[in-house]
Amino acid sequence: MKKIYFPNKKKIMIKGATFSSLCANIKYKDRLDLALIFLEAGSIVTGVFTKSKTKAPSVILSKKVVKDSFKNEKEPIAIVINSGNANAFTGKEGTQAIEKVVSKVSEHLKISKNRILMASTGVIGEPLPYKKITDKIPVLIQNLSENQVLDCAKAIMTTDTYPKFKFKKFKIENNFISILGIAKGSGMIAPNMATMLSFIITDIKISYDILHKITSNLSDKTFNSITVDSDTSTSDMVLVSTTSNVNMKPIEQFSDRRIKIFSKNLELVMKKLALEIVKDGEGAKKLIEYQIVRALNDKSAKNIALSIANSPLVKTAIAGEDPNWGRIVMAIGKSGENIIQEKIKIYFGKYLITYNGKVYKKYNEKKAKEYMKKTNLLIKVDLGIGIGVAKVWGCDFTKDYIEINADYRS
Amino acid sequence: MKKIYFPNKKKIMIKGATFSSLCANIKYKDRLDLALIFLEAGSIVTGVFTKSKTKAPSVILSKKVVKDSFKNEKEPIAIVINSGNANAFTGKEGTQAIEKVVSKVSEHLKISKNRILMASTGVIGEPLPYKKITDKIPVLIQNLSENQVLDCAKAIMTTDTYPKFKFKKFKIENNFISILGIAKGSGMIAPNMATMLSFIITDIKISYDILHKITSNLSDKTFNSITVDSDTSTSDMVLVSTTSNVNMKPIEQFSDRRIKIFSKNLELVMKKLALEIVKDGEGAKKLIEYQIVRALNDKSAKNIALSIANSPLVKTAIAGEDPNWGRIVMAIGKSGENIIQEKIKIYFGKYLITYNGKVYKKYNEKKAKEYMKKTNLLIKVDLGIGIGVAKVWGCDFTKDYIEINADYRS
Repeated sequence: MKKIYFPNKKKIMIKGATFSSLCANIKYKDRLDLALIFLEAGSIVTGVFTKSKTKAPSVILSKKVVKDSFKNEKEPIAIVINSGNANAFTGKEGTQAIEKVVSKVSEHLKISKNRILMASTGVIGEPLPYKKITDKIPVLIQNLSENQVLDCAKAIMTTDTYPKFKFKKFKIENNFISILGIAKGSGMIAPNMATMLSFIITDIKISYDILHKITSNLSDKTFNSITVDSDTSTSDMVLVSTTSNVNMKPIEQFSDRRIKIFSKNLELVMKKLALEIVKDGEGAKKLIEYQIVRALNDKSAKNIALSIANSPLVKTAIAGEDPNWGRIVMAIGKSGENIIQEKIKIYFGKYLITYNGKVYKKYNEKKAKEYMKKTNLLIKVDLGIGIGVAKVWGCDFTKDYIEINADYRS
Repeated sequence: MKKIYFPNKKKIMIKGATFSSLCANIKYKDRLDLALIFLEAGSIVTGVFTKSKTKAPSVILSKKVVKDSFKNEKEPIAIVINSGNANAFTGKEGTQAIEKVVSKVSEHLKISKNRILMASTGVIGEPLPYKKITDKIPVLIQNLSENQVLDCAKAIMTTDTYPKFKFKKFKIENNFISILGIAKGSGMIAPNMATMLSFIITDIKISYDILHKITSNLSDKTFNSITVDSDTSTSDMVLVSTTSNVNMKPIEQFSDRRIKIFSKNLELVMKKLALEIVKDGEGAKKLIEYQIVRALNDKSAKNIALSIANSPLVKTAIAGEDPNWGRIVMAIGKSGENIIQEKIKIYFGKYLITYNGKVYKKYNEKKAKEYMKKTNLLIKVDLGIGIGVAKVWGCDFTKDYIEINADYRS
């Protein structure tokens, strides 16, 4: 278990949001596996969801709640999250199971069903033992408290080795705004929301449309720009909500200049959480930033970045601390994107590796080898043909990944 | 080194074709790394090549020779193959290096340069030590012999653990036709000709157009339907050539019924070699056939098959002999292809696993676990929505893959 710094619990709170978690023995005993986030009346929630064609019922439910969120601002919002079981590919019983959970929450919190979201993560295809969840709903609600978010971060973990958390407080004009986020990885991570859950809560007063637009844009640059193993999960989502609790003039126009400050801070929180997921990728020992510049266009740049970041041969070379840049060339080539071989400049950190379609004459393998020993690596590819750029973060591919995933279920 | 059965050397020959190989110390000492295949006047050659955008000079050269092959049937054909260096991303010096080799072969064999093909496999980005090759050309030519093809199969190996070889003799009307093929893997293997070289020679009398069409169709069903690690190489090719040596009425019409018999046998040779490549995939312990049936169309079926076969999570589950069918569901979902969850039937061998959008009620995990212990596995997905079908072969993902690829260069 890696060490992680947690600030003073008492300072980490969002007015209007309370948290609770407990052990419901969903898959394992004696570990937190059920969490509840409660947002008071006036809150709105938006989000982005897995693009998988085998979406879990919780994704379908939560998408619907998000879509209608702006219609029901007078009622509170509840988000129920369980680990240990993804409730994916579980047939109509799977849908019925979450309906049972939603009914119970609705009854005990006295809020409409269409204000309740759910997220599940864990094994696919096993029936959700929903009674274990519904039985615990009363005590889960009873335990709601302003500063229990860190335990929620623990409750949503699966193969993560540590809880992922970020809190940011900043000023817009005379108002202090807070953003609080938790997330979990750590396999099935690839763009399009892989087994990744993240819940971010702020207290800014902002319209649904604007919050939705910002969330969607920033997700592309953060959660949708990381990859652990190129696999995409059935269940995952990033929810961004606000309690609207700050006493400020609401942000209601896309031209509002306060959006820029808020966006910058939200991006910081989302990026931090996204990078924590990669760092804690199954078996990962290294975090690599892939920068593509001067591609034909941004889309082409991102495809090339992902082709490199997802290549098993690139990832094993990095695990072996081998500056095997030929595999970068291979991965650029297999992307199918337009390139001109003679124009490609590959950099490992500050070291230029290729020039004029071959290895750079001043390339020093010894220095590159030394560089590869670092834990945080930068691999930059300058394609020299356009203005497209992309940044993607990935990790290496180690024997531990195989071990974790060959034995995960048993 | 796995054991492989080789038949009597003397019987393995194609009239009009001779073979030679030797140790040129290209990367390692004391191992065969240079091969020559010589086909007498009247021969034609066709082939399929990597779709990589970072193609090696040898691919560009050989593509050109293939394109013009039918124009020059009066001259013999020579194919030079080296292992230990892929001569890829080596700039204009890389192109000049193969020109040097081609000139030397042309001079000593007294054939035009446009009848000489080259294939290189090994590390990307290191300058080809072409002098080591040109120095050996005279003795390579001198050693040409009708029954040395098995040593050629050894000379083209890189991380392969055994040479790959297939010989087939059959009758069309009153004529005996032979097909002889060699191949190498075993990493960077994925559709679009990954690090895969195969050289197939027959003696049938057939027109270039027909041979080309057959080769291209069969490649899609064999070499382009296997995957080891989803990576695609810069250098690879499958060449199919004929010495036209059999005394028969030439096949010159697409309606000729003899094409069917020839195709069937060529497919058998190509499939056998393709499967040997997967079986010997880096670190692979299991060979899996993925059958997709009743997809929307063939293209959709193949995408789904590859999404499953390339998923690291599916492949590690198979390595762990875990019937973790949830990961198959995930991989179907992430393909982005149209499906209806409730209609998906997943089979491991004869065992039905899913039915009606969830686990099949008679599913017996114990039996499925027992099945997963086999070395050859069949995973079938019936999508129940159309008539599209696909077959793809893949392998599992083991710690040995990581070991081989983290340490390959050093």
